[in-house]
Amino acid sequence: MKNNLYYPKISLSDEDIFLEIKKEREEIGYYSLPYTDTTSIKKELDNLDFKQKNIAIIGIGGSTLGTYAIYNFLKYHKQKNKSLKKEIFFFESTDPVNLNGTISQFDLEDTLFIIISKSGTTIETVSIFKYLMSIIKIDQSNLLVITEDDSKLNTFAKSNNIKTFDIPKNVGGRFSVLSNVGLIPLYLAGFDIDELLKGARHISTSFFEQYELYTHLIKKARTYYEYKDVYNINAVFSYSQLLEGFNKWYIQLWGESLGKIDANSTNQGLTPIGLLGPVDQHSFLQLIVEGKRDKTVTFIKIKDFKDDTKIAPTTLQGLEELDYINNLDFKELINLQADATIASVKEYKKDIPIDLIEIEEISEFEIGKLLFYYELLTSIVGKFLRINTYDQPGVEGGKIILKDKLKSKN
Amino acid sequence: MKNNLYYPKISLSDEDIFLEIKKEREEIGYYSLPYTDTTSIKKELDNLDFKQKNIAIIGIGGSTLGTYAIYNFLKYHKQKNKSLKKEIFFFESTDPVNLNGTISQFDLEDTLFIIISKSGTTIETVSIFKYLMSIIKIDQSNLLVITEDDSKLNTFAKSNNIKTFDIPKNVGGRFSVLSNVGLIPLYLAGFDIDELLKGARHISTSFFEQYELYTHLIKKARTYYEYKDVYNINAVFSYSQLLEGFNKWYIQLWGESLGKIDANSTNQGLTPIGLLGPVDQHSFLQLIVEGKRDKTVTFIKIKDFKDDTKIAPTTLQGLEELDYINNLDFKELINLQADATIASVKEYKKDIPIDLIEIEEISEFEIGKLLFYYELLTSIVGKFLRINTYDQPGVEGGKIILKDKLKSKN
Repeated sequence: MKNNLYYPKISLSDEDIFLEIKKEREEIGYYSLPYTDTTSIKKELDNLDFKQKNIAIIGIGGSTLGTYAIYNFLKYHKQKNKSLKKEIFFFESTDPVNLNGTISQFDLEDTLFIIISKSGTTIETVSIFKYLMSIIKIDQSNLLVITEDDSKLNTFAKSNNIKTFDIPKNVGGRFSVLSNVGLIPLYLAGFDIDELLKGARHISTSFFEQYELYTHLIKKARTYYEYKDVYNINAVFSYSQLLEGFNKWYIQLWGESLGKIDANSTNQGLTPIGLLGPVDQHSFLQLIVEGKRDKTVTFIKIKDFKDDTKIAPTTLQGLEELDYINNLDFKELINLQADATIASVKEYKKDIPIDLIEIEEISEFEIGKLLFYYELLTSIVGKFLRINTYDQPGVEGGKIILKDKLKSKN
Repeated sequence: MKNNLYYPKISLSDEDIFLEIKKEREEIGYYSLPYTDTTSIKKELDNLDFKQKNIAIIGIGGSTLGTYAIYNFLKYHKQKNKSLKKEIFFFESTDPVNLNGTISQFDLEDTLFIIISKSGTTIETVSIFKYLMSIIKIDQSNLLVITEDDSKLNTFAKSNNIKTFDIPKNVGGRFSVLSNVGLIPLYLAGFDIDELLKGARHISTSFFEQYELYTHLIKKARTYYEYKDVYNINAVFSYSQLLEGFNKWYIQLWGESLGKIDANSTNQGLTPIGLLGPVDQHSFLQLIVEGKRDKTVTFIKIKDFKDDTKIAPTTLQGLEELDYINNLDFKELINLQADATIASVKEYKKDIPIDLIEIEEISEFEIGKLLFYYELLTSIVGKFLRINTYDQPGVEGGKIILKDKLKSKN
């Protein structure tokens, strides 16, 4: 008896996946961003010397989510250290009530506007920009543009002497946080962008040059892949409000990268969920613990909040039984809450795959690590799924219909 | 041949489900909330005559999410109409950086504090309250308590002459928005709570007394139930930032109510996802369109934003091709974006079950309708799933472990 195998050549061995990622690294731009030399960017921005107190970013999706993730993580910390130079506000939505609400929150006159659009023709971004131009004078003194160097937005900027910064063609929006998209506004706001890149570089080196993260990330990605039809939902449960922006960034990265038609014309897709502890212990946790076994959960903890706010040692008449929380640091309480939730899932619900990420502290270095770790993980899962991780063809249909609707109106 | 059927007696006929809900209505408190006479609440609050400019709610989960949903929906609208009497801030998380960040946003001296906890011993709530008490004087002049009438928090309030309002025992936290939990802070902030209840009553009447909503809601719930193993994810895609709070409320309601072990000891659970348009067109939409067919999508549109903010008719050099958006109202743009996204899914992806909810305008009446509609839908899906929709046993494990950890520390 003889059985010839005419299978297509697919290998999901660790080595072959790693080789594919290494090959992809030559073409896909985000892999090289951690190695950016920021000297000239910083010099240019220092020379421009914008004096405005606020930054307003006009952008949507990949143009804002990464910057918001980092800003949200570090803002209060930097305010406390007096190292925040400018506050950042975000114009994203075409909701008119929200648009006017955002405007009412700060002084437009004392604001540097930064338009960010990779394609340069994002309809939300241009609409909002046109509206803002109608209520305040915007020119090279209070505007920067970040876009691809041959976009129509770049043409606009050049013909109005607006300073522009480039988004490389081979860096997709959702992978662009460590490009000019994030670096420019964050540097202007007083963030240490070199530490950010150093964090990302740390992960990159650990994966591409050292053995530990290589094995770890491929194993993790393989688990997501092999159990994708059982666990089609991947929740991130972050124990700090400071990671709310990270959660949103993760949702875009994971959903838009991995929700694809694969090489076999099959709809693939792992669904990201972002949760915040302890708040979501009072919401989504019940579903994790007793609900259908269709979720993996990644808990994220900040080991040291570097904040000594304490629960006062007050005894409240009637509530004496709660005196055991007296004198406790909040930073300790929140981490004990995380530990208790993890223990309750890990020890009693053995059929829920969980993992734990611990962030050392609230710093550029640490968030740089976290972001790059997730980008790399996303790329590897994409390889296992045999999809194009970097495009987003599914959103084009709606854009074409919208254009037709709008054109037929005018 | 003969085949005797010894099946357990289960009927999922429309009539029997309806009868079960009607029976449940006698026991579960939230069903009667729309019929609350608010005269005495309003009189009491008017007599207390709190002069503070701000309200700070100290609570978590069901104690805040409903109020936040309504506040978030109507806040800007009411600010514009000068009918917002007090701004509301929320203390929810034990994250110390977030806690201090929230404190820095408003003047604690000019604030009425409202502690809301059904059990009265919620650890986050009591911790934050103790901390606030250590930095500002809190007594009957600037504090209200909303809790069950035999809770330990009630004992504290009574012994300190703090005014309390009751949460009925048979009204669960996530179904409590139309009880004192929501009505007290919202009335104080200047909301028309009677219109809110009128909206809820409208839905209740339409379901229990008129035939239309009865058929509709049971059909909808049946679809979720029958396809639960195919479509285990239910996304709500709200086209307005004003529905961000509603999305969060929905996630708690749906997840915590329906994630349960059923009568057959099987883990059940439909996973809620909250999306915001157009922002999430640039994030999650790709996953809906090309990802695995495991999601239903409910689009929500606001028909009339009552806001005439327009895109200015400016021609930008280089961007002339986008002049077709000139002079368009933003309220029209956002709804055309919703229509285009819906069309792209409905017409080209026939295997994604979608539905559309249209809200007439931004008002108490409309949000009251939406909230009660979802509560009723949740109850009906719970009946199909044969679960207890109103408890949350899955979160107790973590609480016990936390208590042990805390007690062993002290």
